[in-house]
Amino acid sequence: MHSFEALALLFKEKFEVAHFPAKPATLYDPNNYFLTIGGKRIRPVMCLMGNELFGEIIPDAFHLATAIELFHNFTLIHDDIMDKAPLRRGMQTVHEKYDSSTALLAGDVMLVRAYDYLNKIKTQYIHQVLHLFNKTAREVCEGQQQDMDFEKLDQVSMEEYLQMIELKTSVSLAASLQSGAILGGAGEGNQRHLYEFGRNLGIAFQVQDDYLDAFGDPEKFGKKVGGDIIANKKTFLMIQALETAPEDRKNELLQLMKDNPADKVARVLDIFIYCGIDKWAIDLKNKYTSIAHQHLEDIAVMDTRKGPLRQLAAYLLNREQ
Amino acid sequence: MHSFEALALLFKEKFEVAHFPAKPATLYDPNNYFLTIGGKRIRPVMCLMGNELFGEIIPDAFHLATAIELFHNFTLIHDDIMDKAPLRRGMQTVHEKYDSSTALLAGDVMLVRAYDYLNKIKTQYIHQVLHLFNKTAREVCEGQQQDMDFEKLDQVSMEEYLQMIELKTSVSLAASLQSGAILGGAGEGNQRHLYEFGRNLGIAFQVQDDYLDAFGDPEKFGKKVGGDIIANKKTFLMIQALETAPEDRKNELLQLMKDNPADKVARVLDIFIYCGIDKWAIDLKNKYTSIAHQHLEDIAVMDTRKGPLRQLAAYLLNREQ
Repeated sequence: MHSFEALALLFKEKFEVAHFPAKPATLYDPNNYFLTIGGKRIRPVMCLMGNELFGEIIPDAFHLATAIELFHNFTLIHDDIMDKAPLRRGMQTVHEKYDSSTALLAGDVMLVRAYDYLNKIKTQYIHQVLHLFNKTAREVCEGQQQDMDFEKLDQVSMEEYLQMIELKTSVSLAASLQSGAILGGAGEGNQRHLYEFGRNLGIAFQVQDDYLDAFGDPEKFGKKVGGDIIANKKTFLMIQALETAPEDRKNELLQLMKDNPADKVARVLDIFIYCGIDKWAIDLKNKYTSIAHQHLEDIAVMDTRKGPLRQLAAYLLNREQ
Repeated sequence: MHSFEALALLFKEKFEVAHFPAKPATLYDPNNYFLTIGGKRIRPVMCLMGNELFGEIIPDAFHLATAIELFHNFTLIHDDIMDKAPLRRGMQTVHEKYDSSTALLAGDVMLVRAYDYLNKIKTQYIHQVLHLFNKTAREVCEGQQQDMDFEKLDQVSMEEYLQMIELKTSVSLAASLQSGAILGGAGEGNQRHLYEFGRNLGIAFQVQDDYLDAFGDPEKFGKKVGGDIIANKKTFLMIQALETAPEDRKNELLQLMKDNPADKVARVLDIFIYCGIDKWAIDLKNKYTSIAHQHLEDIAVMDTRKGPLRQLAAYLLNREQ
């Protein structure tokens, strides 16, 4: 069994090769650039973990992990175009460094390359893996579309937001684990529990992310606190506040979102605390974390094999609060 | 054996189903819209022809043909964004009818759906088909990138232009035929000759397209004649003219491209005719057509089976001149 760090290192070694030919450089240089700016490589590590849960890691799992990471980078390149984001991990986004057409086409060819790696899977599991991969890819697109749709709406229900988060974030974590398990020969029940572990972990992670944006320690959180509030973003916290706050506080919130005063962040946080949104969010995160762990318990393999997955959960969910 | 028309009808029946779920409509309606505006469905028919050349058409060939058509539509949606094209087949393009982000994401999910159909291929040929499909998809992206790169260049060599045309247009025709043949159990030699038939046919078709834009009968050609000249597009004709015209005519051409006078089209055509570019283009088309037919001859199947492919060549290459 490998630790998270060991798997991350193993993957890094396999992944740091040329994934694209040299020419035309105008097409492939942008992709090579984007891959060098890094990332935590969580999804491919989860794929390897899902595979190792059921035995030794097989070579096909590395092809699959590579496909998953290339797919993830494809979504980032295209999302950055749609979100008009100038920076990603502190570096220029592809459309910003080059141009939108280049970023569009670079993303396309990144996705095609992901399927090249999937096609290296030589076992009888290719159809199952492709099925899950395609389903997840569609869902991630649906999540991104919903996210864009929500920006145009005044109010979004908790149910709608949760569904969007699942599609945009959770399913790709869940599918990374499950597809690794498929290659490991896992049975359907075990696959399902592993998927649910990942899906609930993903939701807990997003609740935490929304929480930290409002209540995180700025020095430890690593980004500006209150960014979501300033941008009027619908988050777990804001939606819950709008759904549960007394009428006067709700109106104050709506007014603050409309007027954008200088002290907006502090005043929104006051309302959140008054309404107990901070405690509610921690409870919500704990609820999904607990469901995730229950599914991990229910996987029928030796308990000692589950250590790396517990480590993963701790790594994702114990960020500085 | 089926004629082109019969195969087009067979494919149409299979293709006119819902390829996407109903929700989110903001993501899938644009794709459904784009698929209804039609097209000649040449590539899927070529896939079916490639399959039938070696025996009865198998059900997997229809899945493959569907994947090929969805892939083609994905490239059109994304190309239209990059080219800022307002119309496609006389109808609004997706980014024009909706917006660029929607078109970007709709194209992405169209590509993913193509791979869903590929994953329905149940025979032992899935790896071979996926390999060819991915290779071709990459090449089409490379061709589109080169096409965009060329717009920024003052001059493009014939060799570069030919390579771009091959990547952007010919390889997808060639691969449609070959992948159908793979599913038909064709041997490597036959596959190669069929691919070369398609590739050379594609080049001949593009030469004809460039020719008709300059010398076509406006009433029969179906679009405005001289459009490429007005837009200073590098075409087979313009590149040949710039490479072979005497110095004074070449300078006149360059000046016309710079000044864009009202009588530009007529004056460029005069130079083309003076330099024999019209006859040269017809010879070039005939050269590639002849190479294509030689490869068709070299395929080791009963000559009577080749009828539909000859009909296809005649259909593509005998447009009104």
